[in-house]
Amino acid sequence: MSIQKPMLPKGVRDFDHQAILYRSYLIKQCTTVFQKYGFLPLETPAVECLALLQQKYGEEGDQLLFKILNSGDFLSKTSKGDWLNTDHKKLLPQIAEKGLRYDLTLPLARYVATHHHQLTFPFKRYQIQPVWRADRPQKGRYREFYQCDMDIVGTKSLLCEVEILLIIIHTFESLGIQDFKIQLNHRKILTTLVKIIEHADKEVFFCATIDKIDKIGMDNVCKILSNNHFSTTDIQVLKNLFQYTGTHTDQLDYCQQYFIENQQDIRPIQDLQKILQHLEMINPRYSAYIAIDYTLARGLSYYTGPIMEVVLTGEQGGSLGGGGRYDHLTENFGLKDTSGIGFSFGIERILHVMEARKLLPKATQQGTQVLVINDGLKAYPIILSLMDFLSHHAVAVEIYLEAVRLKKQLNYAHKKNIPYVIMLHDQSPLFFVLKEMKNGQQTVYTKEDLLHFLCAKI
Amino acid sequence: MSIQKPMLPKGVRDFDHQAILYRSYLIKQCTTVFQKYGFLPLETPAVECLALLQQKYGEEGDQLLFKILNSGDFLSKTSKGDWLNTDHKKLLPQIAEKGLRYDLTLPLARYVATHHHQLTFPFKRYQIQPVWRADRPQKGRYREFYQCDMDIVGTKSLLCEVEILLIIIHTFESLGIQDFKIQLNHRKILTTLVKIIEHADKEVFFCATIDKIDKIGMDNVCKILSNNHFSTTDIQVLKNLFQYTGTHTDQLDYCQQYFIENQQDIRPIQDLQKILQHLEMINPRYSAYIAIDYTLARGLSYYTGPIMEVVLTGEQGGSLGGGGRYDHLTENFGLKDTSGIGFSFGIERILHVMEARKLLPKATQQGTQVLVINDGLKAYPIILSLMDFLSHHAVAVEIYLEAVRLKKQLNYAHKKNIPYVIMLHDQSPLFFVLKEMKNGQQTVYTKEDLLHFLCAKI
Repeated sequence: MSIQKPMLPKGVRDFDHQAILYRSYLIKQCTTVFQKYGFLPLETPAVECLALLQQKYGEEGDQLLFKILNSGDFLSKTSKGDWLNTDHKKLLPQIAEKGLRYDLTLPLARYVATHHHQLTFPFKRYQIQPVWRADRPQKGRYREFYQCDMDIVGTKSLLCEVEILLIIIHTFESLGIQDFKIQLNHRKILTTLVKIIEHADKEVFFCATIDKIDKIGMDNVCKILSNNHFSTTDIQVLKNLFQYTGTHTDQLDYCQQYFIENQQDIRPIQDLQKILQHLEMINPRYSAYIAIDYTLARGLSYYTGPIMEVVLTGEQGGSLGGGGRYDHLTENFGLKDTSGIGFSFGIERILHVMEARKLLPKATQQGTQVLVINDGLKAYPIILSLMDFLSHHAVAVEIYLEAVRLKKQLNYAHKKNIPYVIMLHDQSPLFFVLKEMKNGQQTVYTKEDLLHFLCAKI
Repeated sequence: MSIQKPMLPKGVRDFDHQAILYRSYLIKQCTTVFQKYGFLPLETPAVECLALLQQKYGEEGDQLLFKILNSGDFLSKTSKGDWLNTDHKKLLPQIAEKGLRYDLTLPLARYVATHHHQLTFPFKRYQIQPVWRADRPQKGRYREFYQCDMDIVGTKSLLCEVEILLIIIHTFESLGIQDFKIQLNHRKILTTLVKIIEHADKEVFFCATIDKIDKIGMDNVCKILSNNHFSTTDIQVLKNLFQYTGTHTDQLDYCQQYFIENQQDIRPIQDLQKILQHLEMINPRYSAYIAIDYTLARGLSYYTGPIMEVVLTGEQGGSLGGGGRYDHLTENFGLKDTSGIGFSFGIERILHVMEARKLLPKATQQGTQVLVINDGLKAYPIILSLMDFLSHHAVAVEIYLEAVRLKKQLNYAHKKNIPYVIMLHDQSPLFFVLKEMKNGQQTVYTKEDLLHFLCAKI
């Protein structure tokens, strides 16, 4: 066999023990909070039917799906005509029937639609698994990355929104991140705004445009709207609303007044009022995290109610998570009226922030605590039974696997961050030398004293 | 959009919280032992280069690989001629460059070959991730399933074998499984046997045949050998060896005598002797788990030294794990002499055994402990602050999300195995009724007493 280069495909990564420890720590903090609020885990397979995945994420999404070639002779279902006209889109359904999970929402919808007779509603689940997108790889963007979703399915109660907000707050606080705000808006407020200014047909464009305020600034957004037949008066009205500051009540009243003047349904505003009131009831500290932001849009097709996004208050750099209410989760599968709400923690981005702020635990807390020096075959009866003795008392212990010179063995302990090394004392089975790697200090102990010392230290 | 059936591809599964809890429990037990012996986790991407995956698992393996279609216009690299001759094997490399992970050994080899300059050797890693094989789905066999591998790479020391055996023993004991044995053999013993009886060219066939003794019995295996030009005398010699009983020393001496008579290298036998001696030194209890089994073959191409397999002593039903020493792990990548040893725990099968024996924890230990009954909007100030109070003291508490009739709310608690329910007492904010779901008993408490009671119970 010829020699191959050990290559990885573009945009995917190996995770070493340090990266796994970081991610596990974050996930543990999240799931502890989720479980406290009655959420239970769900895992779905990496492979889904391509027919379900397609046309769910827009045209761009369809392109970014990883498609799996049918097993065996994948040409057997094709006809010669199809490949001769060289249209890959036409050929695709004949040679690929499966694809890789693109997000965790479609699998949830499929799961709920399949098992709705057995599930207890409201169904609260969290799901933390990788997803795959054939995106152009770039700094911080990968083709395989973890998502962390939580959803409540099967009720329109606004208590869901309150619960989700509490979970967001408790999760970030438990991670040591306090300088965040939760931007809050309601999808129907945006719909009503474009309706009032008689641009209801441009809702998608409008939302996509105001979504850019963070990146290109209010003035540029206004210019774009102006170039697209939004009147100067309307733009000024929108700008006033977007930039209106004050208490939550002030902001909501201002919008409500505008809706009333224009004979519009004010229930979306009342929803936000109720959510904030409930949060205030629990603890005014919590509602202080909320920032009403009428420019928050969060991708159109999906959400139908309150929407939210978490950002750091002092920093640029994108959201730490987002979500909102949807009314049509399982409608594609013929199951109507399963309103729900979901929130997705951006764990890749959160990890990045935590790493920069040194909020993650050190790897030294994991792994071997003691290395027993290997003096060769004659010493085996002593060092093997020492290893077993310590190991049985929950000390993480390794024997160096080869009887090489001491320096190499100590170097192994150093590189693996092993804090203690044990050596035989004059080949005696009764005494051992314990060396502390951090300062080189050596002390002679009996087996029992060694155990006492280590148990106290570790 | 037309209505779709919420289908899953054949051979893959969803995992509900109960299944996840079971698997997590098993994995936690395993990793605790692995880490105590200095093993650290590694995770690799689901997607690998198809060129690396192919020709590593035999012809059958190549067929079972899940191949990923190139993104975008996958036809762009093909020529019409290739389509016309309708040879899917020739077309494949032009339309698919990636595939799904088939096992955890190739990713390890790729990782070691890539990072060998930075790694600390001996490199000890464990890896627990799903793999994908387009096998024919059948009872208990899936197309996506977890593997749990541990390997020591970079040393020929027989202490590795000892360490792996200790880990196997401690892992199974920690899972509550004691009636297992570890079958032990040496790949080079099998090579020597076919050499002695002058059938060295038939080693692959020989190993594949004796591997079937468990399934079809010794007599049928002898018949097959006889039909393939193995002489009656030779078959009798082999049979005597395979069926020889006695202590480990007896069994090894018997084989050693046979090798010496035939002027063969006895080092493979000495290796097994040393491994067993070391194990005995640590604790004779450990070596009692070992069963020398000269019929153990474990797939040929891969292993070069001692091999091992774990089975239950009293039951049929396949192995609970297996492994062995290999000398050529990274040779495909041009990195020679990285001898190592690996063992793979068959976690799907172990889970099955543990479930049948009720060795797995109950789901009731997970999830919500208290449901607060929702009496409607007027009660929100009281129940929301009660929830926050309990939640802050680490009680897992939910409010029922809708103000529906009590029976429906109690039914939710019942279905979700929530042990306690709290109701308002005469709409008073000072007293609460605690109902124990298991016996229906109700007691009135103040908020503080409620907390004391719950903290003591949970």
